[in-house]
Amino acid sequence: MSAPHSENPLKGVQAFVFDTFGTVVDWRTGISRQLRARFDGIVDDDWDAFTAEWREGYYEMTFAIAKGAQGTLNVDVMHRQILDRMLASPRWAHLAPHVVTDAQRHELVLFWHDIPGWADTTAGLYALKKHAIIGPLSNGNVRTLVDMAKNGDLPWDVILSSELLGSYKPNPKMYLGALQHLSLAPHQCAMVAAHIYDLRAAASHGMRTVFVRRPQEPDAPDDIRAKSDGGEVDVYAESFLEVARVLEAARREEQEDAERARRAGRREGGRELRASL
Amino acid sequence: MSAPHSENPLKGVQAFVFDTFGTVVDWRTGISRQLRARFDGIVDDDWDAFTAEWREGYYEMTFAIAKGAQGTLNVDVMHRQILDRMLASPRWAHLAPHVVTDAQRHELVLFWHDIPGWADTTAGLYALKKHAIIGPLSNGNVRTLVDMAKNGDLPWDVILSSELLGSYKPNPKMYLGALQHLSLAPHQCAMVAAHIYDLRAAASHGMRTVFVRRPQEPDAPDDIRAKSDGGEVDVYAESFLEVARVLEAARREEQEDAERARRAGRREGGRELRASL
Repeated sequence: MSAPHSENPLKGVQAFVFDTFGTVVDWRTGISRQLRARFDGIVDDDWDAFTAEWREGYYEMTFAIAKGAQGTLNVDVMHRQILDRMLASPRWAHLAPHVVTDAQRHELVLFWHDIPGWADTTAGLYALKKHAIIGPLSNGNVRTLVDMAKNGDLPWDVILSSELLGSYKPNPKMYLGALQHLSLAPHQCAMVAAHIYDLRAAASHGMRTVFVRRPQEPDAPDDIRAKSDGGEVDVYAESFLEVARVLEAARREEQEDAERARRAGRREGGRELRASL
Repeated sequence: MSAPHSENPLKGVQAFVFDTFGTVVDWRTGISRQLRARFDGIVDDDWDAFTAEWREGYYEMTFAIAKGAQGTLNVDVMHRQILDRMLASPRWAHLAPHVVTDAQRHELVLFWHDIPGWADTTAGLYALKKHAIIGPLSNGNVRTLVDMAKNGDLPWDVILSSELLGSYKPNPKMYLGALQHLSLAPHQCAMVAAHIYDLRAAASHGMRTVFVRRPQEPDAPDDIRAKSDGGEVDVYAESFLEVARVLEAARREEQEDAERARRAGRREGGRELRASL
């Protein structure tokens, strides 16, 4: 007997939940472009560095809260706290006179609501949505994710966020909350992310894992590979369209399995009929 | 000075949240049709009465829990509890031998995931979605609402449900939770429902109210009228398309207001310029 072919890891998967910032949308380009436009003709600065520091502050705070620290579950509030801290720091204090009022600072926070998807994002999500439930499982708050979806044509079936589920990733509440609300067993739900920490947490709860390589994203070692190549994730892809092709193949295999089972059942039924004659 | 025209009540409304069973989807037809198909050739019965009793049990349980009673927040679990009780009752006991296993009973519960929208539902939701955030604010659980949306082409931007918000309507947690997660002031969010209890609860929290008449739905007195006609709701409509037309008019008025403010600002600026010369 030959070695069994490795089974398509997306067979039986009914829902995909997505890390959003970095995996679905390009926060780096999106935020620095809006900062550049906002300060155009007022002050010229290193907006990529500003964006990176803002994002870094978010990582620090969400990870701390995920491990049990006190803090807000609303990412708008968090982005504002980090912004205020940055504008009070020596590196960025020269910007503070140009963003003085509450409304002006809130305008900058809202930049996180309007970040473009990657080139493959929208087409990939529509392709996946034909065969499965799709939704963000994100540290963003609901309104941020809703606005991002409307601005960027992200056709989510459902939005699952920190504020709804009570913590931040990688806290178990996030993954277990998604499974509970989607009424799924872990192997019926796949986590899609460009960061390995997120997939390792999902795998620890029995979820399927889909790694999508987004160059420049942190926490994405070069040696990540699919299980079929000796690695740790169920699917390795470089775009959502690639993930959709794997899912389409899985659906075809499921149909063939069902057809085979139906035929076997008919044969079985035939045997029973003959036995009873 | 003539009396002011009554202002379009949907001006400034950024999101619409919808009662779902009865308002968005036709549960009566949807469930009884599936029951009829399921029992076709096995047993013939009054499936409209079966459906009505199932629905009645749901009303009783959700209202009790909304007022503080213990009970499940998952409507699949609730529908199963009511079904089991009905199948043990004298009126329906003759059906029990035909739905014996757990899987068979769960199949019936899933009927609630596949209920068709009213004739105007899908087109109306797409029209509203162009100008505002739309989502159910429903006593259904997330998976029921997601399946219903995929089966019935309901293009929700977000799904807000009892299990996510911690109670059932008309408990304040539902309305206040929707406002919190959408980051909206009450007057920026409209509740759409075919039942007056739901709109009265929404209004008590300052939300806008849109009554849509769905014949046969309970708790919809004949004399409901819009405030502009001396009644209590902000908008009275007979279809979602009518609501969309009111919203489109509101958006035009908002643009005109903004244009007037811009011109007034320019005149003001001109006066200031002349004064400083």
